[in-house]
Amino acid sequence: MRALVKTEPVPGAALLDIDTPRLQSDEVKVEVKAGAICGTDIHFYHWDPASTNFPVRFPLILGHEYAGDVVEVGADVRGIAVGDRISVETHIPCGACYQCGLGEGHNCQDMGLVGISYPGAFARYAKVPAKVAFKLPSGVSYEEGSLFEPAGVAMRGVDEAHIAPGDLVVVLGCGPIGLFAIQIARAVGASQVVGVDINEFRLELAQHMGALAVNAAKESVVDAVKKVAGRKGGADAVIELSGAPEVFDYIFDILRLEGRIVTVGHVSRPISVNVSKQINLKGVSLKGVFGRRIWETWEHLSSLVAAKRIDLAGVVTHRFPLEAFEEAFRQVHGDAGKVLFVP
Amino acid sequence: MRALVKTEPVPGAALLDIDTPRLQSDEVKVEVKAGAICGTDIHFYHWDPASTNFPVRFPLILGHEYAGDVVEVGADVRGIAVGDRISVETHIPCGACYQCGLGEGHNCQDMGLVGISYPGAFARYAKVPAKVAFKLPSGVSYEEGSLFEPAGVAMRGVDEAHIAPGDLVVVLGCGPIGLFAIQIARAVGASQVVGVDINEFRLELAQHMGALAVNAAKESVVDAVKKVAGRKGGADAVIELSGAPEVFDYIFDILRLEGRIVTVGHVSRPISVNVSKQINLKGVSLKGVFGRRIWETWEHLSSLVAAKRIDLAGVVTHRFPLEAFEEAFRQVHGDAGKVLFVP
Amino acid sequence: MRALVKTEPVPGAALLDIDTPRLQSDEVKVEVKAGAICGTDIHFYHWDPASTNFPVRFPLILGHEYAGDVVEVGADVRGIAVGDRISVETHIPCGACYQCGLGEGHNCQDMGLVGISYPGAFARYAKVPAKVAFKLPSGVSYEEGSLFEPAGVAMRGVDEAHIAPGDLVVVLGCGPIGLFAIQIARAVGASQVVGVDINEFRLELAQHMGALAVNAAKESVVDAVKKVAGRKGGADAVIELSGAPEVFDYIFDILRLEGRIVTVGHVSRPISVNVSKQINLKGVSLKGVFGRRIWETWEHLSSLVAAKRIDLAGVVTHRFPLEAFEEAFRQVHGDAGKVLFVP
Amino acid sequence: MRALVKTEPVPGAALLDIDTPRLQSDEVKVEVKAGAICGTDIHFYHWDPASTNFPVRFPLILGHEYAGDVVEVGADVRGIAVGDRISVETHIPCGACYQCGLGEGHNCQDMGLVGISYPGAFARYAKVPAKVAFKLPSGVSYEEGSLFEPAGVAMRGVDEAHIAPGDLVVVLGCGPIGLFAIQIARAVGASQVVGVDINEFRLELAQHMGALAVNAAKESVVDAVKKVAGRKGGADAVIELSGAPEVFDYIFDILRLEGRIVTVGHVSRPISVNVSKQINLKGVSLKGVFGRRIWETWEHLSSLVAAKRIDLAGVVTHRFPLEAFEEAFRQVHGDAGKVLFVP
Repeated sequence: MRALVKTEPVPGAALLDIDTPRLQSDEVKVEVKAGAICGTDIHFYHWDPASTNFPVRFPLILGHEYAGDVVEVGADVRGIAVGDRISVETHIPCGACYQCGLGEGHNCQDMGLVGISYPGAFARYAKVPAKVAFKLPSGVSYEEGSLFEPAGVAMRGVDEAHIAPGDLVVVLGCGPIGLFAIQIARAVGASQVVGVDINEFRLELAQHMGALAVNAAKESVVDAVKKVAGRKGGADAVIELSGAPEVFDYIFDILRLEGRIVTVGHVSRPISVNVSKQINLKGVSLKGVFGRRIWETWEHLSSLVAAKRIDLAGVVTHRFPLEAFEEAFRQVHGDAGKVLFVP
Repeated sequence: MRALVKTEPVPGAALLDIDTPRLQSDEVKVEVKAGAICGTDIHFYHWDPASTNFPVRFPLILGHEYAGDVVEVGADVRGIAVGDRISVETHIPCGACYQCGLGEGHNCQDMGLVGISYPGAFARYAKVPAKVAFKLPSGVSYEEGSLFEPAGVAMRGVDEAHIAPGDLVVVLGCGPIGLFAIQIARAVGASQVVGVDINEFRLELAQHMGALAVNAAKESVVDAVKKVAGRKGGADAVIELSGAPEVFDYIFDILRLEGRIVTVGHVSRPISVNVSKQINLKGVSLKGVFGRRIWETWEHLSSLVAAKRIDLAGVVTHRFPLEAFEEAFRQVHGDAGKVLFVP
Repeated sequence: MRALVKTEPVPGAALLDIDTPRLQSDEVKVEVKAGAICGTDIHFYHWDPASTNFPVRFPLILGHEYAGDVVEVGADVRGIAVGDRISVETHIPCGACYQCGLGEGHNCQDMGLVGISYPGAFARYAKVPAKVAFKLPSGVSYEEGSLFEPAGVAMRGVDEAHIAPGDLVVVLGCGPIGLFAIQIARAVGASQVVGVDINEFRLELAQHMGALAVNAAKESVVDAVKKVAGRKGGADAVIELSGAPEVFDYIFDILRLEGRIVTVGHVSRPISVNVSKQINLKGVSLKGVFGRRIWETWEHLSSLVAAKRIDLAGVVTHRFPLEAFEEAFRQVHGDAGKVLFVP
Repeated sequence: MRALVKTEPVPGAALLDIDTPRLQSDEVKVEVKAGAICGTDIHFYHWDPASTNFPVRFPLILGHEYAGDVVEVGADVRGIAVGDRISVETHIPCGACYQCGLGEGHNCQDMGLVGISYPGAFARYAKVPAKVAFKLPSGVSYEEGSLFEPAGVAMRGVDEAHIAPGDLVVVLGCGPIGLFAIQIARAVGASQVVGVDINEFRLELAQHMGALAVNAAKESVVDAVKKVAGRKGGADAVIELSGAPEVFDYIFDILRLEGRIVTVGHVSRPISVNVSKQINLKGVSLKGVFGRRIWETWEHLSSLVAAKRIDLAGVVTHRFPLEAFEEAFRQVHGDAGKVLFVP
């Protein structure tokens, strides 16, 4: 079969003909119907410095955001059958450590990672442990299913922000995950969502998703948020998805007293914090997020998508066949929402 | 001034000319702009057996769901000023008991009750302790403000149901509070809301608010809910607002394992519960609700209303001048949503 | 090997010589070092009416509260090895249903039950799915380990009571689980625990565990609790472990406004509840408990035991060899705490 | 009366003869029976650079940690009477802002501060708004009562750490608040508490309170905590009370995945954080604490003290009459726990 493979730690990737996956007794084989390009794929494709932080196992089939049909199941698989339409959780929990025992398998002490240390899915077929396969509800498309993993990051971010009804929420960064977060925050009761970015294409999408769009390069984010906040004095919750170190210059100032911050974006350099003033006197709650709760986050997201309360496909701006991978990996750096590979 | 007064514990009430209220140092005087009829007012008006459960102080000006303009403030009042547009919390907390200290003043050990033990507001002017006055956000009408108290019951019910994104929620009883609850449950992330009643007029309103309407007199509520629930096996949360003893025949059966029930409606007779099977083995969480958290519930509701995420006025079906009180108190027994008095 | 087996649905059980267990690929074999008699075992032994509520598969090896050494593991077992000292969770979750996905596998939609629908452990060897084996920390004895399952019920009950520091807690029923609950409630911050029973032997044990003992047959539980509660007006939390229908005559009266009730005990007949007065106006939170959260409850308990913060062995009053099973099953009806089988 | 007064923003303070306080209608007058020296008092006494961060109103009577007898009450005071024994909350909430409405008056937008912007209590008599007076339970001494405010900081820190039964807790800083925190963490269910400091006198006290003492100047805190943590990989919760910037070099390393940090200590300079690695990938929850929840924190603490579950007085090492204030303010820099003024 054709697969987009990275054979060594240098820039680039190649479309190779390789054997279809052979299953362990606890794995399933998937015919891939849609795959989405994630920031991690981009790091690996260019093999930029951030890549070296990941436990990559070569040769690596790229891609971990995908959906497809189960075409074969291992001998010990229960609960997943041939013909099931599934999406896939990237974090493969060991099931035996302290974290897994506490229901925190999304941050397992001995975690496998699809498309990083475990083979990915930019290919005709992929394999995956059955325990990380999530059945798609009827009425949810493969494209939507391929976005459950990144939209799940947004869902988890919103869940951890503990949105109260009527909250003012600020989403920092309006890339695909930010656009999902804007929709989800509104769907779960935020009265208003402010979307912040410096890219006008993304800000227009944010506005289209229902956010008040603020261009941090052109106006003061603090002023803009405080104006909306009125007597609250700041946002009830801020979800940081940009990874831009600059946002930490104002992230505490746009928050109300006793407000909540959720950080998700990977920030390229250490930031400076005045613990007394910015954290303690302010009474801040802060939560760092890595991955999706299995399957709680997925159930939340899946129900919202199936009920048409949010529109994942609206964030997709480009679709390519796998053969056009070079063009696809160029497109993600331009004006783009989510970029998909479709067969 | 004109006021609708009940002078003794017998059926009926009278429109009397009485002095305008004189203030204590911690009270404010309100020019009433809209007042809504509550079930308690109906009990008192007819002086039915339920009335005797309440600590009524005669003579009593009826009415506690209202909004208006502050026209005078007592000497020690801070934070409320002449000209403020306010709605009023019915539960007057003492501020000194164990409950009040824990932030549970809505269920104070020594509570005053507007329109019951403290003078009400079906009149040109009313007075109220400043500590239970809630300032209306700009853009919220007096009519909406007069509904904050009953809609706050719905808001609290939904808050206590701890709706997770995508939850299936059942609202039992589609009177005004049920109709508010349907809207609110959807606004805070329920994927689907089922509204149950036996009155077709109310069920049509429920459907109009976005619920799947089920007539308990015509079809099996258990079958209807289970069909929607699919693999969940039942609703994630049930909010009981009907007060009908009959619903306890099926309330546990329509709930999924480990689901949540919130009971608010006043049930006229004791019900029978199989603790082992219906509570323990099922893993039910149940919360009884009396009143609104001060001011948390109000802030949630107020933000949703101001942002037009819910439409309180859509539940109003009739408006009368105070002079037509006899007609108004007849109307509430017919096909009606909420019935208001407007000057 | 010798095993205590029930071959048909009639009173009694027999000590039979049977084959040692043969393992599926996901199971482990355990040399049993200590086993405790549970109320369910007693129901089955006498085959009383309650027995018919359970999905018993004959022939059944009795016993599910136990600890021992792993002596063999199936081919696919990860995380458990020969030589591990383990205790066993009775509830075998399917891992694939909605409940399991939400981390509520303790109340799985398709649950196996050790010693009921799956073979038990009153035998020299037992087998069990690896996923319900819990490794004992060093320093914890087999006897203590055999009590993790019932003490886990107490632990879960206390966890669900959301004890705040300084809470007044009432434990209804001072059998073994009640005695565990008394210890645990104190260990997690209750300022005072009241233990209620009608058996003086048990009440003495309760007092020894640090509770204020109240004999419901001799004094008013309401008066006794209210006296301790002072300005709280009642207990902050009540944990019902007795299963006695009579306690529902006063369970709401001993609770403060907005207090919490956890029900665990299996009540033999339906009880009557005044929803308006006892649940709603009182603002009660109620949670029904079935089983232990996997592994959260176990981790909590295990840490407390390993740190000697609670003393499980102190609840054991009798130990028998398996051969003396008739005497053991007589003893549980007399003055007894927990009764164990030891090799 | 005699009072320790600071008249201008320069080092030092003077014992002056001044008028006894005159009451507003909402205030009470207290005969001071015990007062404790807080870090803020020390800043003001020396008028060091940190002093300028506070909204001091001169002339200022120093001292805000105290207890005494109510000897007079203002005309509008309810719930507090002459003869009551009280302690005092330092944070005076306005009662009208968004924070106060949400029950977050401890971090009010318009807050008064006893002993800073409102007169303090190192004097024979003090006055205070009735709404920040907390009645001492019988059996609690004035000395203990004078420590409720600082011990309340510890109580709040532990509350916000959401200690689960059996948690491993690290307390950074073993000054008086750290010593309270160690006791409280144990009382609410921590299986083990590690106390970290660089002062041997304080570490001995910490050990005496039940902590495992670690001297950060002599050994690796990371190694020490990881050794205790075993398979947890780190502490479940860390409570930072030292204010030492150095602890942020290792605070994330001593925490397990998905662990909780509470920061309370005022850190003198900004610290550097790697958000990706130290917050996000680690899944950290962090909460900044300023003040005590009113009255939730106080109720928790008060119950634990009254039940003798913690020993506040055990942290007191020195007592002085007010006349010896110079010696007292010297002593706090030496080997000392808490230093009190007693009449």
